[in-house]
Amino acid sequence: MNLLLLEDGDFVAPDRVRLQGRRLQHLREVHRAECGDSLRVGRLGGLMGRGVLFSLNAEQAELQISLDTPPPAKLPLTLLLAVPRPKMLKRVLQTVSAMGVARLVLLNSYRVEKSFWQTPFLEPAAIREQLILGLEQARDTVLPEVTLEKRFKPFVEDRLPALADGSLGLTGHPGEYPACPRAVEGPVTLAIGPEGGWIPYEVELLRLAGLQPVQLGERILRVETAVPALLARLF
Amino acid sequence: MNLLLLEDGDFVAPDRVRLQGRRLQHLREVHRAECGDSLRVGRLGGLMGRGVLFSLNAEQAELQISLDTPPPAKLPLTLLLAVPRPKMLKRVLQTVSAMGVARLVLLNSYRVEKSFWQTPFLEPAAIREQLILGLEQARDTVLPEVTLEKRFKPFVEDRLPALADGSLGLTGHPGEYPACPRAVEGPVTLAIGPEGGWIPYEVELLRLAGLQPVQLGERILRVETAVPALLARLF
Repeated sequence: MNLLLLEDGDFVAPDRVRLQGRRLQHLREVHRAECGDSLRVGRLGGLMGRGVLFSLNAEQAELQISLDTPPPAKLPLTLLLAVPRPKMLKRVLQTVSAMGVARLVLLNSYRVEKSFWQTPFLEPAAIREQLILGLEQARDTVLPEVTLEKRFKPFVEDRLPALADGSLGLTGHPGEYPACPRAVEGPVTLAIGPEGGWIPYEVELLRLAGLQPVQLGERILRVETAVPALLARLF
Repeated sequence: MNLLLLEDGDFVAPDRVRLQGRRLQHLREVHRAECGDSLRVGRLGGLMGRGVLFSLNAEQAELQISLDTPPPAKLPLTLLLAVPRPKMLKRVLQTVSAMGVARLVLLNSYRVEKSFWQTPFLEPAAIREQLILGLEQARDTVLPEVTLEKRFKPFVEDRLPALADGSLGLTGHPGEYPACPRAVEGPVTLAIGPEGGWIPYEVELLRLAGLQPVQLGERILRVETAVPALLARLF
């Protein structure tokens, strides 16, 4: 936790917060914080700054806060991600949030196991929890927008063309395609497939929606590795 | 497992292998392989090709193999990595191997907890196991060279200058440094710090050994995210 992220419910006055639960525990056990300590804080969806701890015990912590710094810019990226297996989903959500992706669409694909859609980790509260961990890690305050699209074809045919309009549209896919571009300017819409990759029909439908296939070399990477690799190359 | 990796002990004839244990189980349970199936195979340290399954039961699998394709090129990279916590170490070893790092030095640092050096995951056999999983994922046959350096100062002062000689030397570190370069030509020596980062003394010692600090933006990334991000940007 490189940033103590504050939510509206934490504020007991415009410049004072009271914390319990996970963040209190983290302050006590990991940071080993003491009264008088000054910590990096940020308000969810708002500014970042410092908080001075003026009261701390086993039940709660209280901080006097001052917020003056905008959070880092988001990547101008809409990421379409085939739903990964639950264990990987949690880590990928943290990565997506930490790296500053603006919008995430969790998408179905032929090779997404149906059971992946049943996981409690896709509940809005569970997704939010992982995104928050990513923001705390990277020092950001703005959650990515996340939507779930359980049906590939209607999403890609009917809504994706408008969503990708005006952006550089790319589908990450191993094969005889151009290399993924580097250091692009402007917004990007990027689709990353499941373990095992998109099927040809999906690559073609994505292409018709404006997303051209690109590759990242002959090595097959796990989704959790491909995501940071593609993002670091693009931006 | 995108490549069935074969070791010397698997060969019962120059073009025949017999498999048991983990790979047999994977063939049966994940690939649901059947006699006559043709699979991608590679010989550890050697060529890649195809293997045709001609016998399969609960005890063993036998394949007729033909090897003709060289493995993908390694990245001309020596990666110095402050030892991460055990759970992250396993994933990072897989990533390092999958992305084709040629040499990995697991290094001590002020912010590496002493207990991390005690983990059984640093045993040679445990390291090798994770590296193998990375090769199977990425379709490569050549293990990275891995060394452990428990003492930061003597390694960086006495051996690193020769090791980094003739390469582009970089230390990944957040701060007011030049941005990490993109698409470099030639060999690179890159140092990535622990959670919490290098301490200034370490950054300075690495600089004196020829590694210049570079940053990847203001977001603080976890080691397992920073590794693929830096590698994808550099190569």
